[in-house]
Amino acid sequence: MALIVQKYGGTSVGTTERIRKVADNIAKFTKQGHQLIVAVSAQSGTTDNLIKLAGEVNDNPSGREMDMLLSTGEQITIALLAMALDKIGVPAISLTGPQMGILTDNAHTKARILSIDHSRIKKELNAGKVIIVAGFQGISEENEITTLGRGGSDTTAVAIAASIKADLCEIYTDVDGVYTADPRIVKNPSKLNVITYDEMLELASLGAKVLHPRSVEVAKIHNVPLSVRSSFETEKEGTFVVNKEGLEKNLVVTGVASDKNTAKIGIFDVPDTPGIAAKIFERLGQANVNVDMIIQSATRNKKVNDISFTVPKNDLYHAVDVIDSLQEEMGFGEVVCADDVAKISIVGAGMVSSPGVAAKMFTTLSNEGINIEMISTSEIKVSCVIKNYGDNVNKAVCSLHDAFDLDKIGK
Amino acid sequence: MALIVQKYGGTSVGTTERIRKVADNIAKFTKQGHQLIVAVSAQSGTTDNLIKLAGEVNDNPSGREMDMLLSTGEQITIALLAMALDKIGVPAISLTGPQMGILTDNAHTKARILSIDHSRIKKELNAGKVIIVAGFQGISEENEITTLGRGGSDTTAVAIAASIKADLCEIYTDVDGVYTADPRIVKNPSKLNVITYDEMLELASLGAKVLHPRSVEVAKIHNVPLSVRSSFETEKEGTFVVNKEGLEKNLVVTGVASDKNTAKIGIFDVPDTPGIAAKIFERLGQANVNVDMIIQSATRNKKVNDISFTVPKNDLYHAVDVIDSLQEEMGFGEVVCADDVAKISIVGAGMVSSPGVAAKMFTTLSNEGINIEMISTSEIKVSCVIKNYGDNVNKAVCSLHDAFDLDKIGK
Repeated sequence: MALIVQKYGGTSVGTTERIRKVADNIAKFTKQGHQLIVAVSAQSGTTDNLIKLAGEVNDNPSGREMDMLLSTGEQITIALLAMALDKIGVPAISLTGPQMGILTDNAHTKARILSIDHSRIKKELNAGKVIIVAGFQGISEENEITTLGRGGSDTTAVAIAASIKADLCEIYTDVDGVYTADPRIVKNPSKLNVITYDEMLELASLGAKVLHPRSVEVAKIHNVPLSVRSSFETEKEGTFVVNKEGLEKNLVVTGVASDKNTAKIGIFDVPDTPGIAAKIFERLGQANVNVDMIIQSATRNKKVNDISFTVPKNDLYHAVDVIDSLQEEMGFGEVVCADDVAKISIVGAGMVSSPGVAAKMFTTLSNEGINIEMISTSEIKVSCVIKNYGDNVNKAVCSLHDAFDLDKIGK
Repeated sequence: MALIVQKYGGTSVGTTERIRKVADNIAKFTKQGHQLIVAVSAQSGTTDNLIKLAGEVNDNPSGREMDMLLSTGEQITIALLAMALDKIGVPAISLTGPQMGILTDNAHTKARILSIDHSRIKKELNAGKVIIVAGFQGISEENEITTLGRGGSDTTAVAIAASIKADLCEIYTDVDGVYTADPRIVKNPSKLNVITYDEMLELASLGAKVLHPRSVEVAKIHNVPLSVRSSFETEKEGTFVVNKEGLEKNLVVTGVASDKNTAKIGIFDVPDTPGIAAKIFERLGQANVNVDMIIQSATRNKKVNDISFTVPKNDLYHAVDVIDSLQEEMGFGEVVCADDVAKISIVGAGMVSSPGVAAKMFTTLSNEGINIEMISTSEIKVSCVIKNYGDNVNKAVCSLHDAFDLDKIGK
């Protein structure tokens, strides 16, 4: 008997017919004697519809009221799924984030989980019930409903799995695993049977959209056995996300990812004073702006530097406001921004021991006539910011997928 | 400066445009310096849609999961209304029933309010905010979401008004007050400027559908100044619901009501033992069946009685199950039931001092060829159960409205 946490995304519970199918899949596990906690998202379309309604009454609603509004989406799904399980004789109980005791900070619309209370979980599991919990939401110490931001249901599932030391955390989605590239862009991507947390983290952050990056982060920290699989073809094995140690050999390049939800900000002539960069990014952090790539380059004038960085597109104007407010105090020059950019990345845990990977990437892009605007590297990835126009992005992904023979993985 | 509780029903907040109109009406009051607590219903159609979804996964869902599901409807409305107020510069905060501290018993889908905590209310009013509270819902001592049943938002508003001793409780709805009869049935009904709690209670219970009967009950017990008015024509004065003492003279008959949501159960040959009727209705009460009219008639055989009573239509089969389970123990005879009946009532606080009112009602119905199956009277009303077929019910209402000259009230 294992303790399993499962998560079903919006398309997996998109209709009542789909919800009944999910109930059948859960029943398969309970019949084998497993204990289950199931986190679910809002039905696909629900959240967008609620956001539309909000826009009709207020073009800039407060985060608190957005959380109040959006948290209803998951609450509908948990009730329906618990009813569907009851109908097929599987005892189940739905719990909202607050009822589940998912305590978060009070950063509305992008809250972070602080702790999970085990008392209700234990009570319901001991009563032989499947727990259906609303993903994406929690409660702050001030008794306010909070949400974790888009994709937060993954984080809910992994955080619960980590907290109760579950034997397995299964993320059910509309694809049957993690691929070497987005199948909508590349013709012959390979499905990966296994991938490391680090690789998955980079791919998730880079817009592969299979798992929310925060969920992978939590899984890595707490070593949660994670599996990504299809809710539509439940008989298929998915992709296991494991420790580096769990892999016999690491692939040099595991995948290519693109991310169009990125924007670039440049600050020119920043005085070369110790701590000035720290201050800029501290302020951005305080304003809850997620800064991604940061590049500082020396100029000819040794007394000043240029600093460039990327942020998610919807944080762009907020970030520029923050920077503008610092201009007088810090005495830097012009601030420029652009949102017609995209980030292309290659990821692979074996990269660190294979020289020449970055060079091969730059050459490949150059051969396609694609200009590189920013470069950032880590031990397991190389990212380039390029212009997002025409079919630039798809061309970059396909040519890199070819160059690194990713279509041949596992074949 | 007054402390006012307002309630807006489902059609009053049915669209985002309507929600903005409601926000404008609230702003009118805050500009005059009043403090406001506003209870709202789910947008019209939302609850029915959720019930439909539930039916698609389970034809007999548990009350607990229904409450989990249905409580989302009001939560959507409170968030949208708080956003709309914020947009026009009126500080507001939405609170769910649980956040508002509305403690109920645990009778899911028809819970009763036990107490209302004032700490959050005081905090938000002191902060100068309009409180927008989700009607219809509360929380049990076991931290479960409960709902008060259809029309429960009225009860929420009146219970809050009673609890905080508000100066006024305004119920905004899609009609501009209480009429002498349903305008969809009678051609020339009169609008009442004022009506007593008792009359309103009878009319509400009898299916006039302007106010939920429980809300009137609470208003009466706590002497809450209550007003029913239109959210579509906010400039119109509505109907005030007051104490008997508040009226100079009572009308003999104030209104005629019909209720098709009624069913009849007859138990034959009930042994004439002391306490047997008490036991039957105690068991029905324990099973949460709302029994309305009760009639016990002696038969020729002095050792047994026949007992008839009415219940809401959707409680019929549940009630019959309860009765059947008592048959062996109590040794009564046949149990019969019928749901093709309707209840017609005339209501008026002056009735008690005007003899012949009941007789006039019976004669009027008889002249229309309508047979009376059951009769029940109180100090301020006479109710008759008749067959519900053809245009029987409408004919009964119109003829009584004419007979008592209700079209001439206030004219």
